[in-house]
Amino acid sequence: ERSGVPEAILASEKTAADVAALAATAIETTGRAIVTRADRDQVAAVRDRLDAVAPAATLAHHPAARTLVAHAPTFDPPRLDATVAIATGGTADRGPATEASLIAREMGARIRLIEDVGVASLARTVDAADRLRDADVVIVAAGREGALPTVIAGLIDSPVIGLPIAAGYGRGGEGEAALDGLLQSCTALSVVNVDAGFTAGVQAGLIARSIDAARGA
Amino acid sequence: ERSGVPEAILASEKTAADVAALAATAIETTGRAIVTRADRDQVAAVRDRLDAVAPAATLAHHPAARTLVAHAPTFDPPRLDATVAIATGGTADRGPATEASLIAREMGARIRLIEDVGVASLARTVDAADRLRDADVVIVAAGREGALPTVIAGLIDSPVIGLPIAAGYGRGGEGEAALDGLLQSCTALSVVNVDAGFTAGVQAGLIARSIDAARGA
Amino acid sequence: ERSGVPEAILASEKTAADVAALAATAIETTGRAIVTRADRDQVAAVRDRLDAVAPAATLAHHPAARTLVAHAPTFDPPRLDATVAIATGGTADRGPATEASLIAREMGARIRLIEDVGVASLARTVDAADRLRDADVVIVAAGREGALPTVIAGLIDSPVIGLPIAAGYGRGGEGEAALDGLLQSCTALSVVNVDAGFTAGVQAGLIARSIDAARGA
Amino acid sequence: ERSGVPEAILASEKTAADVAALAATAIETTGRAIVTRADRDQVAAVRDRLDAVAPAATLAHHPAARTLVAHAPTFDPPRLDATVAIATGGTADRGPATEASLIAREMGARIRLIEDVGVASLARTVDAADRLRDADVVIVAAGREGALPTVIAGLIDSPVIGLPIAAGYGRGGEGEAALDGLLQSCTALSVVNVDAGFTAGVQAGLIARSIDAARGA
Amino acid sequence: ERSGVPEAILASEKTAADVAALAATAIETTGRAIVTRADRDQVAAVRDRLDAVAPAATLAHHPAARTLVAHAPTFDPPRLDATVAIATGGTADRGPATEASLIAREMGARIRLIEDVGVASLARTVDAADRLRDADVVIVAAGREGALPTVIAGLIDSPVIGLPIAAGYGRGGEGEAALDGLLQSCTALSVVNVDAGFTAGVQAGLIARSIDAARGA
Amino acid sequence: ERSGVPEAILASEKTAADVAALAATAIETTGRAIVTRADRDQVAAVRDRLDAVAPAATLAHHPAARTLVAHAPTFDPPRLDATVAIATGGTADRGPATEASLIAREMGARIRLIEDVGVASLARTVDAADRLRDADVVIVAAGREGALPTVIAGLIDSPVIGLPIAAGYGRGGEGEAALDGLLQSCTALSVVNVDAGFTAGVQAGLIARSIDAARGA
Amino acid sequence: ERSGVPEAILASEKTAADVAALAATAIETTGRAIVTRADRDQVAAVRDRLDAVAPAATLAHHPAARTLVAHAPTFDPPRLDATVAIATGGTADRGPATEASLIAREMGARIRLIEDVGVASLARTVDAADRLRDADVVIVAAGREGALPTVIAGLIDSPVIGLPIAAGYGRGGEGEAALDGLLQSCTALSVVNVDAGFTAGVQAGLIARSIDAARGA
Amino acid sequence: ERSGVPEAILASEKTAADVAALAATAIETTGRAIVTRADRDQVAAVRDRLDAVAPAATLAHHPAARTLVAHAPTFDPPRLDATVAIATGGTADRGPATEASLIAREMGARIRLIEDVGVASLARTVDAADRLRDADVVIVAAGREGALPTVIAGLIDSPVIGLPIAAGYGRGGEGEAALDGLLQSCTALSVVNVDAGFTAGVQAGLIARSIDAARGA
Ligand SMILES: Nc1ncnc2c1ncn2[C@@H]1O[C@H](COP(=O)(O)O)[C@@H](O)[C@H]1O
Ligand SMILES: Nc1ncnc2c1ncn2[C@@H]1O[C@H](COP(=O)(O)O)[C@@H](O)[C@H]1O
Ligand SMILES: Nc1ncnc2c1ncn2[C@@H]1O[C@H](COP(=O)(O)O)[C@@H](O)[C@H]1O
Ligand SMILES: Nc1ncnc2c1ncn2[C@@H]1O[C@H](COP(=O)(O)O)[C@@H](O)[C@H]1O
Ligand SMILES: [Mg+2]
Ligand SMILES: [Mg+2]
Ligand SMILES: [Mg+2]
Ligand SMILES: [Mg+2]
Ligand SMILES: [Mg+2]
Ligand SMILES: [Mg+2]
Ligand SMILES: [Mg+2]
Ligand SMILES: [Mg+2]
Repeated sequence: ERSGVPEAILASEKTAADVAALAATAIETTGRAIVTRADRDQVAAVRDRLDAVAPAATLAHHPAARTLVAHAPTFDPPRLDATVAIATGGTADRGPATEASLIAREMGARIRLIEDVGVASLARTVDAADRLRDADVVIVAAGREGALPTVIAGLIDSPVIGLPIAAGYGRGGEGEAALDGLLQSCTALSVVNVDAGFTAGVQAGLIARSIDAARGA
Repeated sequence: ERSGVPEAILASEKTAADVAALAATAIETTGRAIVTRADRDQVAAVRDRLDAVAPAATLAHHPAARTLVAHAPTFDPPRLDATVAIATGGTADRGPATEASLIAREMGARIRLIEDVGVASLARTVDAADRLRDADVVIVAAGREGALPTVIAGLIDSPVIGLPIAAGYGRGGEGEAALDGLLQSCTALSVVNVDAGFTAGVQAGLIARSIDAARGA
Repeated sequence: ERSGVPEAILASEKTAADVAALAATAIETTGRAIVTRADRDQVAAVRDRLDAVAPAATLAHHPAARTLVAHAPTFDPPRLDATVAIATGGTADRGPATEASLIAREMGARIRLIEDVGVASLARTVDAADRLRDADVVIVAAGREGALPTVIAGLIDSPVIGLPIAAGYGRGGEGEAALDGLLQSCTALSVVNVDAGFTAGVQAGLIARSIDAARGA
Repeated sequence: ERSGVPEAILASEKTAADVAALAATAIETTGRAIVTRADRDQVAAVRDRLDAVAPAATLAHHPAARTLVAHAPTFDPPRLDATVAIATGGTADRGPATEASLIAREMGARIRLIEDVGVASLARTVDAADRLRDADVVIVAAGREGALPTVIAGLIDSPVIGLPIAAGYGRGGEGEAALDGLLQSCTALSVVNVDAGFTAGVQAGLIARSIDAARGA
Repeated sequence: ERSGVPEAILASEKTAADVAALAATAIETTGRAIVTRADRDQVAAVRDRLDAVAPAATLAHHPAARTLVAHAPTFDPPRLDATVAIATGGTADRGPATEASLIAREMGARIRLIEDVGVASLARTVDAADRLRDADVVIVAAGREGALPTVIAGLIDSPVIGLPIAAGYGRGGEGEAALDGLLQSCTALSVVNVDAGFTAGVQAGLIARSIDAARGA
Repeated sequence: ERSGVPEAILASEKTAADVAALAATAIETTGRAIVTRADRDQVAAVRDRLDAVAPAATLAHHPAARTLVAHAPTFDPPRLDATVAIATGGTADRGPATEASLIAREMGARIRLIEDVGVASLARTVDAADRLRDADVVIVAAGREGALPTVIAGLIDSPVIGLPIAAGYGRGGEGEAALDGLLQSCTALSVVNVDAGFTAGVQAGLIARSIDAARGA
Repeated sequence: ERSGVPEAILASEKTAADVAALAATAIETTGRAIVTRADRDQVAAVRDRLDAVAPAATLAHHPAARTLVAHAPTFDPPRLDATVAIATGGTADRGPATEASLIAREMGARIRLIEDVGVASLARTVDAADRLRDADVVIVAAGREGALPTVIAGLIDSPVIGLPIAAGYGRGGEGEAALDGLLQSCTALSVVNVDAGFTAGVQAGLIARSIDAARGA
Repeated sequence: ERSGVPEAILASEKTAADVAALAATAIETTGRAIVTRADRDQVAAVRDRLDAVAPAATLAHHPAARTLVAHAPTFDPPRLDATVAIATGGTADRGPATEASLIAREMGARIRLIEDVGVASLARTVDAADRLRDADVVIVAAGREGALPTVIAGLIDSPVIGLPIAAGYGRGGEGEAALDGLLQSCTALSVVNVDAGFTAGVQAGLIARSIDAARGA
């Protein structure tokens, strides 16, 4: 199986008890547990369970990202010589953007997060591009019409992964306008599904791993 | 009925003979005939018919816009003290953009056309915005992901009408990604249907008429 | 950036605390705070916060429009010599229509609201058109099949902005039938997204500003 | 099986030879052959075949409606004491409207056809409603945004059947905007599929038959 | 305006207070109040209000149909010499079918309701057709794949109105498979929107009125 | 890999030369070549090629099914003690139904084909069910609203595979209404994609193989 | 009517009281009651009712499958000499997979359930195929992209029924991507609707019955 | 603007003359011309024009990929120390896969193309994964249900870009099932639009450039 992709428990399809049990197994066997798309009850169940089976573990819950990361004291996190940057258009993009950054960080990448640089304030977008330019790979999150990844990809040379966000209302407001816009982007980029912060984070992490390996070579 | 909106014959649903007959009637009763979305056969039929019934008329055919405009010598075109600007992202947007400009011109507006300023070359987009700023109303045509109207509307104060173009392929490639993106635009603008250059031109022309009237007051 | 478009906080993607903080900042820096698509909790949080930081501000909450407008005593509202009219088909259209009227009023336009003139009672529609005729720009809100903007645009000369409403059930009942109908309208008009009262209000306000400027010239 | 509904051969799914054979059988067994949605080749094949097997038959081809009706000399057409009216918005609606009228006429109804009364010229629409009022059942054909059936149904007391037409372009232009608008109509009416003139004609004919029977009672 | 179509208040887009006020006005001005798609709170509000303003009125609430009908003692209900039959495939169709029957009854038609005759038990379907045959117009409600109206329309001569029901799950389960199936029906019928019992009832009632008039002639 | 499923060349995505080469390889290595969804040019190319490389082969082309089957003289066709029946609603269903029957026959099943038994003539449908009852597995092809498989599955005990056909026009006319109706069927059946005669034939053939094996046991 | 398909009450469209009454009737007349898609209240109502009318019945509730099966002591369950296997990609598929297994078991089939063998761990998928190979018919449940049924069908000879699951998020996340993927599968299989465990179970059970009969012959 | 992304002329929206003129300009200014999605006429026009203006240029036309690449003798192609692999499921995927490989090669990457390894023959898929494992980035093209990229991404550690192909028929057959399946993939990958070989090639090329730079460091 694929190495380097951290096991993560997608909570949204499971009972709180199932999630807690899977998290316990994960920390016992790999020294780490990552839970994504978790609601309040699932987080509480995981906390209780890990308190019991792994009381020495550190546990970080990121409510906006609905993500929980636990490390056993013995866990030795990977560390890559490569940077993943994440840019967002506005506060509505924060949840999946944070989820992406957490996953890429767990894969060992250095993280740079640049928020609120949507194209409605184009000067700030252009400024942001300058700070994104030297990252090894860039995730750009955007809801509504999803113009931000297209604009940034036109300004920098690194590969850009577009992360469409379900923010909006009316036709296309569930992230579909943003997704379709990214698929049609007139600047070349690749795309993940709506709100798929996990997928964007893994893909960016895999690219970072390749670059780290190349740097080490 | 609405005054100031020029009668136009939408050719696409009619036989060449029907279109020619309608054009003949139009030039006889109003001194002008406008035919939109006309194919080669329909244009030829109109030409033949107008040669017969109105040999002194001037006739201009714009193939890219599939539009034909004929004026009887007696026709006194309206003239408005107001400017409609039209911007395009690339050459694929030229047809409907030209159709819009022709209609607004027939309504009497001054026209300014600024082409090939898509967001993939952002510096050119920003330059274009400077030249669009003092127009009274701006139509922005864009296919693919349709980011251009959003970016321009964020840079200028005039009302912007987004004109989505059926240029692209794959999901959303028939203009639907552009249309949905404009409906979700994070900068406020209003929208017409895909390739609806006629509608964009009329709406811009009506705004130009109001401004002309206000200037004259 | 665009001048003349009032900053408004789109509440639906934010926590009550975030909305309140943004409203406080807005009133402190611009003398005004506008919050749209706000639920009960968000309104309460804003009220509490503004009571604390700007006790002298006037605060108006419009529940049907889910919109809240606060003015500091020092705020000097713009005033335009131009009229925006808003017509609705029935009571289900009231929320977004009111939102549109509030935004256009904040931009300084005179407002005329004409309600319950749907085409099922055509005589009332025709009467309404008479009262809409001398407005500088007209927003027409309509749900269900969305016939009202088409009929009114055929009766008056001012530019019409169609505002489709999510009222109905069965196929197309979430405002999609109305939106598609407006995009296909056989009388020329421009369109905003479903329930996008804010966008319609801004676009009408921008046109009103241009006319006001032309009148002043 | 259902009596009173004329057998019709839906040509669009068949070879010219198959259509011709079915038409020959129909005229031999029932004294009548009706072929709908027939292209040029299919019509020619039917003509040739009927010339051979039923040289005395009268044969009427209606190209706009793509419909062909043949009667053997012995055929005794039904005659109903009831009127079906058909109204259209514009010339693009003529094909399916004619198909509907032909089918209802074959069922024996008196036919009244009122064309080009779309809502963009509302005075003509209102005039038409006066001439439709005393029909026993009214089919209203409309493409684009499909507002006409809604407006007419609000003005008259007879049952209205909405017939959406595939005329338009951009989103909803294949008759889908018209169909969805009719399904959402704020005045009560029933609907058939896009361009389904045959179905509209049969349904109107069945109502006419019931009324004829009631008149005779 | 249309006579003979009873005023009905569509509750789903209104506050309980608005619905109650409209019902009070209706009973005072017309002697009757009909409220459709009403939830528990709206029904309670109407009850309270009518108890106050029209204590002598009779009030019938049909929870499955979410419909409420009130008659003032002076109200003189219409009575037509014509029968509307309503057939259903199963218990999931009962709500909109009952709504349709109530509306047609308020228009004066005799009502015949035949339930649970879905095509999975074809012998029962065929039996039902025998009992539907002499009705003047037949509404057939069906969810899931919506085969029932097609089968019944093939067995009887009266006009059939298909009423698709939002019963099912998975693709097409919100009534869309049934609606599309009815639009494609290989036996001719007309259609209303998903769950549109009101519309089906009015259309059947209008046909019944025409037949009643013809019988009386 | 799967045994018992005949290799078939899906022509529609290939050049005529490629198809011919693949067919030559197939007959040389397996003694049989099956080509599906082949147009006229592809069939001619295969014919020419097989004439050259396998002049003794028998070659059968079924134009309605767009399918071609060639057997080398040495080919020993499988023979199963099991029957696959295929029923169709009308002539428009013939192509994919024939394709299904050819594939199941190549897998060795006995074939029974029963045509033109659509539900518009319900008595014929019921008769057909009697002749389908003792088949081991039944494929039912249906276009338009796709009611036929549902009705037949309610009348017989054998497993039914629904094969939706792209016959119709207007909404759902490309086989989508039939497919969705089959997915929602109130009698249990399984389904293949629109016009997927090949898939239906293989699935029926696999069931026939299991039954043959069980009979032999 | 169809024999061998157990009557099942689809609870999701009914009140708890209706479901309980139907279950009581079922156990009294057939010795068995099966309720599917039942929520907590409906299960409680059935329990109470069966305790009253059939206190000796055994009652099994499967919460994940939302299914309840009750047998009267006199009920003699069918027993078939045939095996239905059910495979799942992950825990999110468990509910409909269990529902399918329960229905097939009630029809008398032997059941083999193989869980958590999704293609992300391909070695486990291949192992599972070995254990599925000798089943008479195989149901494969899969959400997300639905690749598992395609992969398994390529590895075994038994007929495969694909059961798409509504697990996922973003575009296609309600089971639509899985359903469409199964309809397009490059290995031949048949399909049921999203989450339609009941339908998959019945279809598998019918095939098992045919094989049992063949074995007995 | 972005450096390292080769200018390419998207022919599909342009006249043959426009394409030829753009190609001439490109070769004169950059020493290279790349034309994508070009039809026969456009290729001929480019050939003629380049023969005239750049007779010494080498010109390679790849009909399957509809792509044309011309290099002036002075053109110094980039060369990267990084490998892009491209895998396909079958011959139908060849066109866009080749387009992707050409673009990545023009960016300087080493190319490895592995064809016909679709999951219907899983052993070949697994073999292919072994040969893909040491590539720096892998593009996997797949039509139909699009399972191949998911399976390969589960077997290797390099980043995978899914390229959905418009091969198939029936629902989802225009590449939509493949695209949605890739967006829902249970193994992490990023995606481009249907048939977007150009975009996949650029994205892979950008990653290859970063890795080349890291290797050089
Ligand atoms: N234009 C049409 N649209 C819908 N249904 C039609 C049309 N023409 C004929 N039909 C119906 O289709 C039946 C014939 O179907 P077929 O056996 O395929 O020719 C006729 O009996 C009519 O009920
Ligand atoms: N008409 C068809 N519909 C669906 N699948 C087919 C069809 N004909 C052949 N196939 C399948 O497609 C495979 C061939 O795919 P290809 O390599 O693209 O020719 C065959 O092995 C069959 O499994
Ligand atoms: N979960 C289910 N999914 C699909 N069909 C079901 C389900 N449960 C029961 N059924 C079918 O629906 C019929 C009951 O429908 P109803 O009369 O609405 O209860 C049963 O006889 C079954 O054929
Ligand atoms: N096949 C293709 N698919 C997507 N984008 C392309 C393709 N070929 C060229 N392009 C892009 O489209 C731009 C040219 O667009 P245009 O100005 O319309 O010719 C190029 O610079 C590329 O970025
Ligand atoms: Mg943005
Ligand atoms: Mg652009
Ligand atoms: Mg209205
Ligand atoms: Mg109209
Ligand atoms: Mg039914
Ligand atoms: Mg049928
Ligand atoms: Mg899976
Ligand atoms: Mg594949």
